[in-house]
Amino acid sequence: MIRGLFSLHSDSIITLTTDFGTDGPYVSAMKGVVLGLNPAARLVDLCHHIPPQDLRHAAYFLQQTIPYFPRGVLHVVVVDPGVGSERALLLVEADGHRLLVPDNGCWTWLDGPVTVRRLTEDRSWRQPVSATFHGRDILAPVAAHLSLGVSAEALSVPMEDWVRLPKPALLRTTNGVAGEVVFVDSFGNLLTNIPADALPTTGLRVHVGEHVIGQRVRTYAEAEPGSVVVLLSSASTLEIAVPHGSAARELRVTVGARVDVRW
Amino acid sequence: MIRGLFSLHSDSIITLTTDFGTDGPYVSAMKGVVLGLNPAARLVDLCHHIPPQDLRHAAYFLQQTIPYFPRGVLHVVVVDPGVGSERALLLVEADGHRLLVPDNGCWTWLDGPVTVRRLTEDRSWRQPVSATFHGRDILAPVAAHLSLGVSAEALSVPMEDWVRLPKPALLRTTNGVAGEVVFVDSFGNLLTNIPADALPTTGLRVHVGEHVIGQRVRTYAEAEPGSVVVLLSSASTLEIAVPHGSAARELRVTVGARVDVRW
Amino acid sequence: MIRGLFSLHSDSIITLTTDFGTDGPYVSAMKGVVLGLNPAARLVDLCHHIPPQDLRHAAYFLQQTIPYFPRGVLHVVVVDPGVGSERALLLVEADGHRLLVPDNGCWTWLDGPVTVRRLTEDRSWRQPVSATFHGRDILAPVAAHLSLGVSAEALSVPMEDWVRLPKPALLRTTNGVAGEVVFVDSFGNLLTNIPADALPTTGLRVHVGEHVIGQRVRTYAEAEPGSVVVLLSSASTLEIAVPHGSAARELRVTVGARVDVRW
Repeated sequence: MIRGLFSLHSDSIITLTTDFGTDGPYVSAMKGVVLGLNPAARLVDLCHHIPPQDLRHAAYFLQQTIPYFPRGVLHVVVVDPGVGSERALLLVEADGHRLLVPDNGCWTWLDGPVTVRRLTEDRSWRQPVSATFHGRDILAPVAAHLSLGVSAEALSVPMEDWVRLPKPALLRTTNGVAGEVVFVDSFGNLLTNIPADALPTTGLRVHVGEHVIGQRVRTYAEAEPGSVVVLLSSASTLEIAVPHGSAARELRVTVGARVDVRW
Repeated sequence: MIRGLFSLHSDSIITLTTDFGTDGPYVSAMKGVVLGLNPAARLVDLCHHIPPQDLRHAAYFLQQTIPYFPRGVLHVVVVDPGVGSERALLLVEADGHRLLVPDNGCWTWLDGPVTVRRLTEDRSWRQPVSATFHGRDILAPVAAHLSLGVSAEALSVPMEDWVRLPKPALLRTTNGVAGEVVFVDSFGNLLTNIPADALPTTGLRVHVGEHVIGQRVRTYAEAEPGSVVVLLSSASTLEIAVPHGSAARELRVTVGARVDVRW
Repeated sequence: MIRGLFSLHSDSIITLTTDFGTDGPYVSAMKGVVLGLNPAARLVDLCHHIPPQDLRHAAYFLQQTIPYFPRGVLHVVVVDPGVGSERALLLVEADGHRLLVPDNGCWTWLDGPVTVRRLTEDRSWRQPVSATFHGRDILAPVAAHLSLGVSAEALSVPMEDWVRLPKPALLRTTNGVAGEVVFVDSFGNLLTNIPADALPTTGLRVHVGEHVIGQRVRTYAEAEPGSVVVLLSSASTLEIAVPHGSAARELRVTVGARVDVRW
C-alpha cells in the first residue's frame, strides 16, 4: 500500500534531459535501466534535442524549466562531452531541486542555495560500467535507487568545488545596457539575457547586428505581422520577434550575438 | 487512498499538443507547472511538432486523434498565434472529450455535440500571467486543477459564440467529386478530405496537379513499389500514395492542392 | 485495490516504437486506443523516428534497448512495410521480453530463447480493421488487453515459422576481421557489428572507405578533438568516432559500409 501511494507523489518522478536525439537507442536504454530497478518510477521526457554537447543550450534549458517543477522530482541530465574522463558525476540540490548531472557546469545557471555531492558508490552502478555511456550505467541506476528511497549519503560524498559555466555578460553602457542572444526558440524568436528591470519603461532602441529596432509591444498580436519588434519574453527578459515570421531568419542573428539597448 | 486509486483512471491523464518543438524549454515548463500542482497527474505527449501557428495542421491532428481517447482525459492544446491578445481561452467539451484550447477554431473540426466555456477565474492561474506564454501560466494550471477535481463551473463561464475554422471544401462536380489534400504524413502519403462514401466502388480516376492516377489498391503491399496509387486511408478518406516512396515528393504536391475524382 | 497496485509494476508498462514520426496523428491515435481500453496503462515512448520502413534500423534499435527493460513490460513495434497484406502480426517472447510486432524480422536480432505466437482473435481488435493501420486497429488493442491480464492463449496461436532478418556478416580475414557499419548515432559516431572479443588488445588498423585509422582510445575525452579514432562502444563493439565532430560526415560513411580491421 505504502509503495502504491508513494509513487503517485513527486518523489517517483524522474525526468530526462539529453543530447541523444530520438532516433537512436540511448534514451530508451536509460528508460529500461530505470524501470528495471524501479518499475513504479514515472518517467517524464523533458528534452532529447539539446544540440550535441552544447552546454550553454543545456544551461539555458535547465534554467528555464527546472524551477517550474515540484522539488521532489529527480532530474537526470546527460549532456556529457567529458564522458569516461575523470570528470565527476554529481548529485546536485539547487534551491531544493535535485539533479543528477556530469560536472560540466550546465546546471550552474540555476539560482538559489546549492549543495553538491559526487557519486562514489559504484555498487549501485550497472556493471561493467562502459567508458562512453555513463547515463545508462551510472546516472540511470542511481536515479532509480534514489526514487526507491535510498539516501544521498549512501550513494555519494560531499564536494566543495565544481565546474561553473560562465553566464553571458550583462553590461551597463554609457547610454543603456548590453547583453546577448542566449536562445533562439522554434518560432525564431531571439531571447536575450537582458532582464526587464534593466530596461526603461519607454523609449528604447535595440541594436543587433546591422539592425535597429524601435518598436516595442506587449504581445505578438499587437504587432504588424512581419515587422520586427521587441517585447518582454515569458522569462521576463528582452525578446526580439517577428510575429508570424522568424526574427532569427529575418535578422540573420543567432546565439551569442551582441544586443545593445540604448535610451 | 482515494486519490491513489483515482489517479489510475483516465481523469488523471493530461495530454499535451503544441507547436513548441522539442528543443526549447516551453513544453517542459508546462509539465513542471502541471506536476507542481498535481504530482499524480499522468502526462501524455501527443505532438509538439505542429508547424508553428498552423491551425489547419492542428485541426486535422485533433480530428484524427482525440476521438480515440477515453472521455475522462483532458487535452491541452497550445497552438496560439493570438497569445496575449483578447482572444479567449476555452474549456471545450466536444462529443464528451474535454479540451483546454485558445479560441482560434483549431478544435472545431471535431464532430458531435459541443459545449464551450471561457476561462475566467484568474485565481487559479499562475501569477503574474505573462503576455506571451498562456500555455504555462493559464492552461497548465487550469488543467492541473481540473485533474484534481475542481469543477468547470469554478473556473469558467458558459460562452455562446466562438471562432470556427472553415473545413476544406468538398464539391460535387458534373462527373465526380473534388476536394483537397489536407495532410501529408511522414511517409509522404497525401491524405484528402474526400470520404469513402463519396467514391464509387470501381472505375475512378484521380486528378491532382498534372497527374492522373487510375490505379486503386486496398493496401500499400498490393502496389508495385514506386507506383502512384490511390487507396482508402485509415481515416476512411481518399489517400494518394507511392508505396516505398513518397507521393508528396513524386507528385510535388502539398496541403491545399486540389484533388479531382472523376468517374 | 489490486488493480491500483498492479499498475505500478512493470506489467502495466507499454512501450511504443514506430516509424511514424511525431508531427502526424498516428502515434497519438494508438495511445488513445490503449488508454481507452486500459486507462491505467503506463505508456513509454521509445522511438518514433525509425526511418520509414527501415527494418535494419529497427532491428538495431530493438537489439540495443529491449534487453535493458524488465521482462514484464510489453513492447509494441510498428515498422510495417507489409501492412494490410497477409503477413502475420506476432506476439513474441524473446529471452522473456514480450513484443507485439509485424512478422518482418525486425525483432530477430534479439538474443535468447524465443516463442512466437500469431495474433488470431479478432474479437479483441478494433472494428472495422483498416487496411493501412494495424498498429491502431490490432496491436494497440491487443496490447491493452494483455496489460489487463488477458492471456496470450486467448488472443493468439503458436507459430513455428517466421521471417528472419539477416544479421550483418562478420568475417574472419587472413589478417584480421571484417564487418560493417550498422548504425550512425546522432553524434555521427559509426557503430559496427565487430564485437570486442574479436579484436586484439593492441596494434590494430581499421580500414573504412578510403581511410585507415590507427588511433585507439578508451574514451572520447582521450582523443584530440577533431581526430578520427576507434574505441569500444557502449554496446561493446568497435566504434569509429570524431570527438567534438562527426565521423559520419568526416569519413562520408554510412550504414552498410564495410569495415576491415587488420593486425
